[in-house]
Amino acid sequence: MAQQTFQEISASDFFYRNRDIAGFTNPTRAIFATIRELVENSLDAAETIKVLPDVYVRLSFAKVGNQESQVFKLRVEDNGAGILPKHIPSAFGQVLYGSKYTLKQQRGTFGLGGKMAILYGQITTHQPAHVTSSTGTAKIYSFKLMMDIQKNRPIILDRRVSTNKGQWRGTIVEFCLEGDYLRAKPKVLEYFKQTAMVNPYANLTFVDPKGRLYKFTRGTTSMPDPPKETEPHPYGVDVELLQRLIQVTPYKNMLEFLKNEFHRVGEITAQKFLAFSNLSPRKNPKRLSHAELVSLMQNLKKFEKFLPPDSSCLSPLGEDLLKAGILKELKPEFLVVHQRKPSTYAGHPFIIETAIAYGGEIPKKNNFVIYRFANKIPLLYDEASDVSYRVINSMNWSRYKVTQDMPIAIVVHICSTKVPYKTVGKEFIADRPEVRREIANELRGVARKLQHFLSRRAHVNKEKKKFSVFIKYLPKIAQFSTDLAGKEKIPDIEKLLKSVRKFGIE
Amino acid sequence: MAQQTFQEISASDFFYRNRDIAGFTNPTRAIFATIRELVENSLDAAETIKVLPDVYVRLSFAKVGNQESQVFKLRVEDNGAGILPKHIPSAFGQVLYGSKYTLKQQRGTFGLGGKMAILYGQITTHQPAHVTSSTGTAKIYSFKLMMDIQKNRPIILDRRVSTNKGQWRGTIVEFCLEGDYLRAKPKVLEYFKQTAMVNPYANLTFVDPKGRLYKFTRGTTSMPDPPKETEPHPYGVDVELLQRLIQVTPYKNMLEFLKNEFHRVGEITAQKFLAFSNLSPRKNPKRLSHAELVSLMQNLKKFEKFLPPDSSCLSPLGEDLLKAGILKELKPEFLVVHQRKPSTYAGHPFIIETAIAYGGEIPKKNNFVIYRFANKIPLLYDEASDVSYRVINSMNWSRYKVTQDMPIAIVVHICSTKVPYKTVGKEFIADRPEVRREIANELRGVARKLQHFLSRRAHVNKEKKKFSVFIKYLPKIAQFSTDLAGKEKIPDIEKLLKSVRKFGIE
Repeated sequence: MAQQTFQEISASDFFYRNRDIAGFTNPTRAIFATIRELVENSLDAAETIKVLPDVYVRLSFAKVGNQESQVFKLRVEDNGAGILPKHIPSAFGQVLYGSKYTLKQQRGTFGLGGKMAILYGQITTHQPAHVTSSTGTAKIYSFKLMMDIQKNRPIILDRRVSTNKGQWRGTIVEFCLEGDYLRAKPKVLEYFKQTAMVNPYANLTFVDPKGRLYKFTRGTTSMPDPPKETEPHPYGVDVELLQRLIQVTPYKNMLEFLKNEFHRVGEITAQKFLAFSNLSPRKNPKRLSHAELVSLMQNLKKFEKFLPPDSSCLSPLGEDLLKAGILKELKPEFLVVHQRKPSTYAGHPFIIETAIAYGGEIPKKNNFVIYRFANKIPLLYDEASDVSYRVINSMNWSRYKVTQDMPIAIVVHICSTKVPYKTVGKEFIADRPEVRREIANELRGVARKLQHFLSRRAHVNKEKKKFSVFIKYLPKIAQFSTDLAGKEKIPDIEKLLKSVRKFGIE
Repeated sequence: MAQQTFQEISASDFFYRNRDIAGFTNPTRAIFATIRELVENSLDAAETIKVLPDVYVRLSFAKVGNQESQVFKLRVEDNGAGILPKHIPSAFGQVLYGSKYTLKQQRGTFGLGGKMAILYGQITTHQPAHVTSSTGTAKIYSFKLMMDIQKNRPIILDRRVSTNKGQWRGTIVEFCLEGDYLRAKPKVLEYFKQTAMVNPYANLTFVDPKGRLYKFTRGTTSMPDPPKETEPHPYGVDVELLQRLIQVTPYKNMLEFLKNEFHRVGEITAQKFLAFSNLSPRKNPKRLSHAELVSLMQNLKKFEKFLPPDSSCLSPLGEDLLKAGILKELKPEFLVVHQRKPSTYAGHPFIIETAIAYGGEIPKKNNFVIYRFANKIPLLYDEASDVSYRVINSMNWSRYKVTQDMPIAIVVHICSTKVPYKTVGKEFIADRPEVRREIANELRGVARKLQHFLSRRAHVNKEKKKFSVFIKYLPKIAQFSTDLAGKEKIPDIEKLLKSVRKFGIE
């Protein structure tokens, strides 16, 4: 009888075999994904050290390919933190190796995108990648790298050290890849535009293969505080996480363990929780049995007195910045922007910011225009699978006197220490119940404000109509009555008009 | 200056941190994903050895949880190939270890789903999984397993061997997980229904937590040949694949290498190709330089005389089976089913089967009803992101005299040695250009047939109307003329009516 053969594969081999799940589906998406992944790494690298980001991207023809795809050379330069030389090979040549595996609001979250881009370049052109970086020390390090995909290890083809006379700090990545820029172009430009909109403190420069320069200059030099790393919130832990925390904690009793390893748990809350769950404050967490672990996890979820997560570790856009961005972009007749209180899912704090805009330059279509952002990056693909789209489409808009064919734009921005993306390609947000609930509540809030505006507007229009009737016929009636009475002085109708004038109608 | 900390994580740790990308987004999806992953493994296990599949699934309450999710116990039994004891721990407790990493049409492709289900059970309930299996030998092996997620290794808690008196062959998996069955129920039942529809030779039994029995009995005992493992087709190789083939090939010259390692390359084609690309047939493939490799890859894609991939390694549904399934399910007024010639993307052969049905029990909605299948499994989530949905929505249907509000169902089935899923959760198919093209051409074909039906129907209706006018007024005219002429015998109008009767109208 035939037996199945079993085999173990490496993580990079897995993503090589399944590049679709990382967003590298076709030559068009490959160009888009490559650019965005590297730009986002660059923005993160600058933000970590609170430096105003300068990101330069150049895509040029390497040589002519076939009809459907051509070979391009991509160069991305930033002024970010730079990478220590010992980390460079793995940071660019080893999948699931990186600096993104902490609880911190970052654009990148999988530690995968940059490497997938380089992997894609390698399998389509077989050229090495060049990485140059300095952390601002006396030296600049340059590497020529390829990946051993089957082993998931970098291959260093060349390594050079040069002196850093200008105290330059940053990273330059350059490699070749096959792609279809012509088709990717609209999305790439939209990506830069929307990225500039939500990162107004960044300089973004993009030179396309025809040498056209797209420059997005920063509008402000004030920069939000960089996001901070944080502990998990007790409402969102699972047994695995609990075990890991216990494994590495230096604290030897439950009270100290709870106080120090969880987000927003202080002395008093910890004591109350321990009483609630019948655990001695002196119990050593490392001595908890399996059953006790499970019950601890369940109690952490049940206990109602934990403080909500603190947004100080998050770096949202803020209502002013969001408002400014939308006003500049859409020039709407009406705009309401709102930032919701922080909430949590699976131990990760998150903040939903929404806006709803009406009229102005928003096109009238059969559907609302939806802008989706996550940790200050725009999401441009697979809208219909996104939780925001679903919430918007399941809402009863007629309740707010809104129909889908009105010129309405809806903006949803989620920032979190961990955005629940559905795909590794970061195309859309998964339908986590906590996230769905927050978005729904938030949208209902802004929708109500839109409703007030719309009903007020309808009222004003009605009054305007009424008033225009008065203004048309009152003078005639006054004239007619004057003639009829055989008088000469027409009575003053201004006073009468004034008494029915509402809402400053002219 | 703050430096970033770099860290390496294991593959199972990656999927633990990012369970959304494997379909385990919320308690509802978790129940659905768990059941489908295990059912698909069971169907694959039976099909490998060409045994009529008997799959038994039981979901029962383990204990009462909170409002949003409860703890369930899941048991899945099959009569498939069974797993050798040495492979059991890793096959269920190690991510990226499995039997699915070959070029063969299978339901599972990532070697991930079953383990993700067990991982999800572990992190929500902290209970071990029980696996019992026999390959039909004298012994049955039972394991009690957990996963070390950080190391991506199985932990064997218990191992038992018993004698196999009844020569039983198959696998039983049992474990606990948190979930929301009430919400998952419609999708779970739809999943079983559609799975039974495209696997008419399987017995599927599902017992739900309330003890309700859903039985889908096989309608046929004839089973398609099991899919075969195959070599990559030359049109779809990349440099990485080429290097791997060269690494393991026993053949020492290009001619033999091409003939033996590629799909449908024979002596003559190989010779012609070598002449085309200026390579000596005697050249040792292991001696190819980097530049020669790249040029070999490009030539493999350019050469136009390779035979198209052979569908014999694929196991499509077939037009008859598909027709029977749809007729049974939808009872349409009109149905056309078509299987397209095999094609290839990235070296993987694939076949598109489509059907378009009109009327009958198909509901009239604002959109077509779309059924999506891949390797005989139904895809029920994220329709709007699927390539079929996109193709259908970008087609100019008015050209075929079709509007979206007609009662029309469209079925698209792709079978391939490698289905280009966009997500690890196998929710939808990526937009690969070759796949998109085939689906589009195929749908245009069936749409034209629908158009003929519709225009013929419209024509028939018009004629019917015309005829009903004749049938109404001709006798009156005949009567009137008879009276007018003062005659008694009314002329025979039957002959006249017959001459204008078309399409067998009554």
